[in-house]
Amino acid sequence: MDRLRLCFSDLRADAILVTHLPNILYLTGFSGSAALLLVQPGRSVLFTDSRYTFQARDEVQGARVQIAKGPLLVSAAAAISTISRRGRISVAYSPTQMTVAQQQSLARLVGRRLHWVPAAGLVEKLRAIKDSGELSLMRGAAELISKVFCDSVRTIKPGVTELDVAAEIEYRMKGLGASGPSFETIVASGARSAWAHACPTSKLLRKNDLVVLDQGAILRAYCSDMTRTVFLGRASAEVRRMYRAVLQAQEAAKSAIRPGVLAQAVDAAARQVLKKSGLARIFTHSTGHGLGLEVHEAPRLGRGDQTVLEEGMVVTVEPGVYVEGFGGIRIEDDVVVTSKGADDLTSAPRELLEL
Amino acid sequence: MDRLRLCFSDLRADAILVTHLPNILYLTGFSGSAALLLVQPGRSVLFTDSRYTFQARDEVQGARVQIAKGPLLVSAAAAISTISRRGRISVAYSPTQMTVAQQQSLARLVGRRLHWVPAAGLVEKLRAIKDSGELSLMRGAAELISKVFCDSVRTIKPGVTELDVAAEIEYRMKGLGASGPSFETIVASGARSAWAHACPTSKLLRKNDLVVLDQGAILRAYCSDMTRTVFLGRASAEVRRMYRAVLQAQEAAKSAIRPGVLAQAVDAAARQVLKKSGLARIFTHSTGHGLGLEVHEAPRLGRGDQTVLEEGMVVTVEPGVYVEGFGGIRIEDDVVVTSKGADDLTSAPRELLEL
Repeated sequence: MDRLRLCFSDLRADAILVTHLPNILYLTGFSGSAALLLVQPGRSVLFTDSRYTFQARDEVQGARVQIAKGPLLVSAAAAISTISRRGRISVAYSPTQMTVAQQQSLARLVGRRLHWVPAAGLVEKLRAIKDSGELSLMRGAAELISKVFCDSVRTIKPGVTELDVAAEIEYRMKGLGASGPSFETIVASGARSAWAHACPTSKLLRKNDLVVLDQGAILRAYCSDMTRTVFLGRASAEVRRMYRAVLQAQEAAKSAIRPGVLAQAVDAAARQVLKKSGLARIFTHSTGHGLGLEVHEAPRLGRGDQTVLEEGMVVTVEPGVYVEGFGGIRIEDDVVVTSKGADDLTSAPRELLEL
Repeated sequence: MDRLRLCFSDLRADAILVTHLPNILYLTGFSGSAALLLVQPGRSVLFTDSRYTFQARDEVQGARVQIAKGPLLVSAAAAISTISRRGRISVAYSPTQMTVAQQQSLARLVGRRLHWVPAAGLVEKLRAIKDSGELSLMRGAAELISKVFCDSVRTIKPGVTELDVAAEIEYRMKGLGASGPSFETIVASGARSAWAHACPTSKLLRKNDLVVLDQGAILRAYCSDMTRTVFLGRASAEVRRMYRAVLQAQEAAKSAIRPGVLAQAVDAAARQVLKKSGLARIFTHSTGHGLGLEVHEAPRLGRGDQTVLEEGMVVTVEPGVYVEGFGGIRIEDDVVVTSKGADDLTSAPRELLEL
């Protein structure tokens, strides 16, 4: 919260209205599903509803809790109105997170004295750099998912369904203390592995299937996100060649990571390797994304992202190639940016597993 | 899609821009995590990115698929601009779902010819009434979760953690074909059961704990949502009295449900019963909510909701009471509104289980 307050001098705002729940979790520790946070230079108020009375009392730090009797926006508007009796009230907000309806309601409730200060990504910028406490939590979430994958490998075999494998993976996560998956676990086999974001189905795994497994766990609020691709049987020379190219692309991207480098340069490093193998055209997504309280955060390791990497950022590195009707290969790790370069948080073996 | 097109005559809009993913899933069948849908009287276009090329081709019905090379909004803006060469272009949108940034970008990209027509809840209104195909899917999701609860009861005992029980429940869901939980399964024991929306922790269940279990599964895209409260040991007279009152409140709410009744009247029926037992003050949330592709949909069975119930609506009925430091009791079923009243979709036993 203190780091956010440092923004006030630049912002020329009387208050910051935080509407995005992961930002509220980051700033106050509150994990409920309904909240607004009004941050002022000297005080902060968290608005939630009566379902969360006890939970808010237990969790919230650095803000006063107000249990709203009606819509949270009405309570927030009342608080905003008291910031100044008659003068103009400047409120900073994130245009990518506030809905048109929220903005219209607040304008109506507070009246013409309300002046909006657009300020996207204020909290996200703070969140992008993880402190040592956060890094230790993220290492824990990454180690957990690495172990879950290794322990689940024996269940990946012809005759079981994609859903069976996903269920096993998510069951093991919770067994190790995760509060849940950080996204719906992807187990995509055969031709479906070419769908970069396929959900698992009751399709049976079959011999000679490529199987993409993309999984992540939430441990003490922080996410991990790791992909491995395995082959059921003995892989053809073509599959091996593609796998090797993806792994080399991942290694090139990791090697490109260090403080001061642009996010887009890491993406270019991976793309360059796949280009040499003639596979760049079927690498259809970005190389990676930031990771933390949310599974997709800033920065994006992709074309056009000019974020300068800094020590303490945590990103995924996940090149992949996809051939319609044939299958896909993706290899993904979570890494932290250190003064010496990328440090792997996830640790499951990266060589092609033929099961 | 055809039912949405019927809205055009009232709307005085050239197109409807749908931004909310569950609405896009409802209208087109597309289940990916990035899409915009532009509906016109004669045609519809779904914009997504290259990760979903194959999946969109497989899933989307009733709309042409356009794979955007850059931001989806830029592609949508280009399509909107071609609706009329020179004249004004009216686009309907939902203010509660479009962000300020999206609206500003579109205004900038399309220019001054763009005229906004606010239209909240257009698709939600269609979604609130389930057709027979949807009802059959929802019955399946509700039966699945009822079975999962019954099969998991033997794992609820002193010495296991809340997370162990949640893991078991979610594992069984997937074993029965669910794509996943429709929300993070709640297993809250002892004093934590008084947190209406507590996440499971590594806290051990203990003798004489109340345990609130709130669980739901997604089966073929549709959600279920069911709560049961059990007691570990022999419940005191006070716990029994409270449990009986909550169950009677639930029965009163179910009896109040029929086509033509206001949503708030169902809530009042539950509240009235708890008032007689002196428990209305600790019934701190609404009686229920709509259920479908999302776990919270219209209508809300709460104070002030004037929605007229109609045949084919599916709602939860879930009164609960919460005593800080002591525990909570909630009983929740999913019901469909029929011409004869509420028909239960969930079926696990409702009497107090003493385990």
